Amino acid sequence: MKALVAGGAGFIGSHLIDALLKEGNDVVCIDNFFIGTRDNLQHLQDHERFSFYEQDLCHLDELSTIFAKEKFDYVFHLAANSDIQASAANPVVEYQNTYTTTFNLLECMRRHQVKKLFFASTSAVYGEKEGISLSEDTTQLEPISYYGAAKLGSEALISAFSYMNQFSTLVFRFPNVIGPRLTHGVIFDFIKKLKNNPTELQILGDGTQTKPYMHVSDLINGIMHFKDQPSENVVIYNIGVESQTNVTRIADIICNGMGLSNVKYNYTGGSRGWKGDVPFFAYDLSKIHKAGWYASMTSDEAVTRTVAEVLSCKQ
Amino acid sequence: MKALVAGGAGFIGSHLIDALLKEGNDVVCIDNFFIGTRDNLQHLQDHERFSFYEQDLCHLDELSTIFAKEKFDYVFHLAANSDIQASAANPVVEYQNTYTTTFNLLECMRRHQVKKLFFASTSAVYGEKEGISLSEDTTQLEPISYYGAAKLGSEALISAFSYMNQFSTLVFRFPNVIGPRLTHGVIFDFIKKLKNNPTELQILGDGTQTKPYMHVSDLINGIMHFKDQPSENVVIYNIGVESQTNVTRIADIICNGMGLSNVKYNYTGGSRGWKGDVPFFAYDLSKIHKAGWYASMTSDEAVTRTVAEVLSCKQ
Repeated sequence: MKALVAGGAGFIGSHLIDALLKEGNDVVCIDNFFIGTRDNLQHLQDHERFSFYEQDLCHLDELSTIFAKEKFDYVFHLAANSDIQASAANPVVEYQNTYTTTFNLLECMRRHQVKKLFFASTSAVYGEKEGISLSEDTTQLEPISYYGAAKLGSEALISAFSYMNQFSTLVFRFPNVIGPRLTHGVIFDFIKKLKNNPTELQILGDGTQTKPYMHVSDLINGIMHFKDQPSENVVIYNIGVESQTNVTRIADIICNGMGLSNVKYNYTGGSRGWKGDVPFFAYDLSKIHKAGWYASMTSDEAVTRTVAEVLSCKQ
Repeated sequence: MKALVAGGAGFIGSHLIDALLKEGNDVVCIDNFFIGTRDNLQHLQDHERFSFYEQDLCHLDELSTIFAKEKFDYVFHLAANSDIQASAANPVVEYQNTYTTTFNLLECMRRHQVKKLFFASTSAVYGEKEGISLSEDTTQLEPISYYGAAKLGSEALISAFSYMNQFSTLVFRFPNVIGPRLTHGVIFDFIKKLKNNPTELQILGDGTQTKPYMHVSDLINGIMHFKDQPSENVVIYNIGVESQTNVTRIADIICNGMGLSNVKYNYTGGSRGWKGDVPFFAYDLSKIHKAGWYASMTSDEAVTRTVAEVLSCKQ
C-alpha cells in the first residue's frame, strides 16, 4: 500500500516510517520541520520506496494537490505540536499545528476518497483525573492544556468525518513516549542539563510527578499490530504500560547511566512541573490487553533503555 | 457590566441582547451576517447602551483590536454555523465559523484578561446514543456531524483556556431551539413549503424523528438565571425540556395553525432526515433541575407557540 506519514520527520513519525518501509509499503512523508528534523530522515534519502514533501499541513490547497497526485491508501497522522510546555505561552501553535493539521488531512481524505486513518492522540485529552485509572470510557474529558484540547478537538473531528465518509479509523491515546530521536521532555532535558553541569540538577516540581513511560519501539509495534484490523468508523485504544516512573527516579537512572554520583537535586517545588502539566496519571489498559496486545517493557525499563540509547548517540 | 454578544445578529443571540439590555447592561454585538441578519438588530439601532461591529470573528488581529478598545466584562459566545444540514457538504464552514470563532474569542479573552464566558454548545456533541437519556456524564461523545464535532472541539478549548487563565465559564448544551426570528429547521421549512403549496408537504425521513424543542424565551431565561452564578473553571448543563415532539406532529400543528386540512404528507423515507442528523434524542435534565431551573413550556407548547409567532409575522 501507499502510506502518507504526516509529521514523519518527528521522533515517533520517523520510527513509524522505518517500520512501514520494512513491511514493504510505499511511504510518503509530509513535514514542515517545525519540530521534526532532516536528521531523522537522513537514513532514508536513497530508499526507493520513500519520498518526501516539505509542506505545512495548514495549507489546505497545497495539501489537496499532493493528495490528488499521490493517491494514498492510508493516512498516518502524527503531525502536531508535541511540546505541551512550549505552547502554554502561545495557544495559536496548537490551533495551527495540532488542530488545523487534523482538519486539513480529514478534509483531503474526504475529497480524495482515502478511507483508512491512524491518529496519534494522547493521555492529555483526559485532563487531570486524580485517583482513577483512565479508561476509554472515562467520562467528562476536560483537558487542561491547549495541546490536550486540540487533540480532543481532533478526535471529535475524526468521529464526524469517519461517520460521514465511512472511514475506518484507529486512534491510539499515547502516554509519554521515549526512545532514540527524542526532542524534548524530562529525559532529554536532564541529560542536557547534566552535560552542562554534572554536579547539580534542577528538577521542576517536587520530583514526585509520576507517569507511565513507553518505549517508542513498543508503540510502533502496537501501531503495526492494529493498523490493518477491520473497524467500523473509529476504534480508540489507550496504549501504554501499567507501571510508572517518577521524576526523581528518572534523574537517578540518568545519573547512574552517566556514571555520576552525589549530584545535588534542586527541586523548584510544587506538585507539578509547569501549568498545564498533569502530574500523575495511570491508564486502564484492559481494552488493548483484551485485544491481545501488551508492551514488552515496563516504564523503568523503557527509561533505562532510552537513557542508554541517548547517551550512546543513537540519537 | 459590558457584555460582548458574539453572533448577536442571529436568532438566539438577538433575543439574548434584548434580555441583557433590559437588565441594564451595556451590550456590544459582533456579527458578520453569515447567518444573522440586520433585521434582527433593527429595533436596537437607537438604543444608547447598544453598539455593533460588523466583523468576521475568524480574523484574530481585528478581533483583538476590538477587545483592547471595549474592555468587556463578559463574553457570550453564540457565533456558529447553526445549520448542520448545510455544512454537511462543506465542513470548512464549521472549521471557520464554529471552531475558529471559539478559538479566537478565547485567545482574545486570554490576551485582554476577560474572565467570564457563556458558551452555546449543543446536544450534537453527544452523537447518536440510542436508548439512553443523555446526561452531562454520558461517556464516549462521538459527534456524527461536522457541527457537533466543532462544538465538542470548542468545549475542549474552553476546558483548557478556563483552567489556564482562571475563566469562569457557563456552558449550555442546547436542544433544538425555536421561536421568533427562526432562520432554518423543520418548522421554518414546513411553513415555507406550505405557503408555496398548501395541498402537499414533503417530509424528510419517515416523520418519526423525535426531539425535544425548546422555546427561545425559556432558553434566554435559563442563561440570565445562571450567568452570574460563581463557578470554578467550567460548569456544563444540558438545558431543555423533557417532553419531545415528532416531525409528523410538527406538520400537524403547522397545518392546524395555518387552517389547512387534508394536506398530503409525502415522506422521503428512511429513519433520519439527512446524513448527520440525530433522529432521536432525550436529555437527562437532573443537573439543571437540581440547580433549581425548569423550562416553562413543554416541547409541544413551544412548537405551537412558535408556529403562531411565525405565522403572525412576529418573525
